[in-house]
Amino acid sequence: MAAASPDVLAGRVARVRAHLRDAQVDALLVSHLPNLTYLTGLRASAGCLLLAEDRAWLVLDFRYAAAGEAAADRLRGVGAELLVADRSLEEALADLVRRAAVGRVGVEAAHLPLRRFEWLRDAFAGSSPAPALVSTERLVERERAVKGPEEVAALREGGRRIAAVARDLGRYVRANRSEREVAADLDHAVRLAGFERAAFDTIVASGPLSALPHARPTTRILEPGDPVVLDFGGVYDGYCVDLTRTASVGPPGSGLERLHVAVLEALQAALEAVRPGVTAAAVDAAARGALSRHGLAGAFGHGTGHGLGLEVHEEPRIGRPVAGQPAARLAPGMAFTIEPGVYVPGVGGVRIEDDVLVTTGGYELLTEAPRSLFVV
Amino acid sequence: MAAASPDVLAGRVARVRAHLRDAQVDALLVSHLPNLTYLTGLRASAGCLLLAEDRAWLVLDFRYAAAGEAAADRLRGVGAELLVADRSLEEALADLVRRAAVGRVGVEAAHLPLRRFEWLRDAFAGSSPAPALVSTERLVERERAVKGPEEVAALREGGRRIAAVARDLGRYVRANRSEREVAADLDHAVRLAGFERAAFDTIVASGPLSALPHARPTTRILEPGDPVVLDFGGVYDGYCVDLTRTASVGPPGSGLERLHVAVLEALQAALEAVRPGVTAAAVDAAARGALSRHGLAGAFGHGTGHGLGLEVHEEPRIGRPVAGQPAARLAPGMAFTIEPGVYVPGVGGVRIEDDVLVTTGGYELLTEAPRSLFVV
Repeated sequence: MAAASPDVLAGRVARVRAHLRDAQVDALLVSHLPNLTYLTGLRASAGCLLLAEDRAWLVLDFRYAAAGEAAADRLRGVGAELLVADRSLEEALADLVRRAAVGRVGVEAAHLPLRRFEWLRDAFAGSSPAPALVSTERLVERERAVKGPEEVAALREGGRRIAAVARDLGRYVRANRSEREVAADLDHAVRLAGFERAAFDTIVASGPLSALPHARPTTRILEPGDPVVLDFGGVYDGYCVDLTRTASVGPPGSGLERLHVAVLEALQAALEAVRPGVTAAAVDAAARGALSRHGLAGAFGHGTGHGLGLEVHEEPRIGRPVAGQPAARLAPGMAFTIEPGVYVPGVGGVRIEDDVLVTTGGYELLTEAPRSLFVV
Repeated sequence: MAAASPDVLAGRVARVRAHLRDAQVDALLVSHLPNLTYLTGLRASAGCLLLAEDRAWLVLDFRYAAAGEAAADRLRGVGAELLVADRSLEEALADLVRRAAVGRVGVEAAHLPLRRFEWLRDAFAGSSPAPALVSTERLVERERAVKGPEEVAALREGGRRIAAVARDLGRYVRANRSEREVAADLDHAVRLAGFERAAFDTIVASGPLSALPHARPTTRILEPGDPVVLDFGGVYDGYCVDLTRTASVGPPGSGLERLHVAVLEALQAALEAVRPGVTAAAVDAAARGALSRHGLAGAFGHGTGHGLGLEVHEEPRIGRPVAGQPAARLAPGMAFTIEPGVYVPGVGGVRIEDDVLVTTGGYELLTEAPRSLFVV
């Protein structure tokens, strides 16, 4: 992944710093790795950033000493320095917090394992005055939900490439092949299309298994009359895209065709609802409304979509409103999937999924590929 | 994955239950998904098991209602029942703990995110008497470290298949191909060899990049004279295997050959140290000792190996002793990698990795494939 430029990183850091005061912390311990990548441009399997109002410390182990030096250089303008831990990251961090005299340290409660939290709390307990650890929520994630131009460029290129793979699906899906063989070929095609890796475990769900929204590819052989749900994605320049199409092995039965028509209408209805200012729940409701008109509301057992970015599931969540949570509203620069599906035991499943970017005027479709129930 | 039989699951549940008293808890909340799979045979993306001395509750959302019913059937003999959450899993769990009057609930501190812990703690606070949440460590993991016969069968078959892929490496590694192209072909071969999926992101690290132990495949084109480290693995019947070989594009320089000789000696030395009763640290020391004799102790910057099972990194850790932690001793049924490597800027990197099973008499090699520096 091309690391984001110092200017871009400085903008991200400034926007997150602006949340520190509201969260009543003097510094945020960024330990969730996608958040670390977002703020530093570094991709590492361990490490953290302690981000204070006017200083910052990137704490890494020796394996990332060289990459960390480059990241610290990119962050020089925001007062960052690199600390290479000579023992554990936690020990280096505890020393640092004491030395820097940070009073209240925010932690990322959605991600920090209890054990690491307890270790830090105990390590701090001996200091005087002891730093306090404070649970925080979404201080970085809320910024990640709105993509900058450099992120949009990666998503657009990823969307273009995954759509090209989708246009060739007929090459892999055939009667007498197993779901696993189809999945293996599809993953190979994703890689040859220039993706770093699959964004998640590819789903190829055929026949009765297509009625399971979370099926894994099995050794089941594709048979005439099967619906086949194909859900796959790739990581391009660090950013995830995700696409689903449904095939029919031989001519579809009328039941399958009716499901496909309904899901396509749900997708269109959701897309037409996408524009700045509407709630994510309104987009979800549009998809649900279309399926209700086909008597299929009960067959749609998951949310309409999820945000895309450094993670394949991130904000915004496009689903029903959750009691006690404020309504998430769409804003230009948000990127997410729209993926209505219906799952009917005895008939099968159909899901169609595209990726969109919210624009000032509505939306931009990132994954332009035919949506028809394609017959193989 | 073929789910383990009711008898096998009952044995695992009984062994974990035997740790509840030592941990001073009335029940263990098993929320780490590989642990959930180990105890129930269920593979789900969300869910938990509340395991008490003589009862147990499997808590899942509606997506896993059918699979959960089958899992609860398998666990009938250990007093388990299925609860399908009609709201969130946390809410269902909080209701359950109050209803079952469990006093002290152990949580898996290494995995439970702080937010879920805080949510449960707050939900319990209103009850009288309020259930206590207690951090626990390794109550399931310590049992998972020693494989049963059904697990050994999966690892053995996975080892056989990944070794077959390794014997064909020369088909993929060639001058003028990019690291990413080689990785894509290699992953395809892993899938066609019958694996459900790759066990981790395949590493293909060439030329100067081979000197980075945690390289990711790039668009770099393989050139004559390059060392190429190839590290890949697969999941077979739910169990992970992992193998590394090093190639040379064209005739290797003498520097590369010397590194390879040293790493091969380190691998052999470590293998010869494997037998029941020795510490994992002794196996690590054997590899380090061999590299020291070649003046390469400083070029080996990671541990010698890691356990293999439902996760690709699990117990036992084969590395240096850690201050304050008891020495882990090998026992029959443990399965792990042995993967010494050296990384020398300017010369390149070499890593060789095989998988072993500890037997009563020593070890069984699971990945039988030539280890030579193969020239392509």
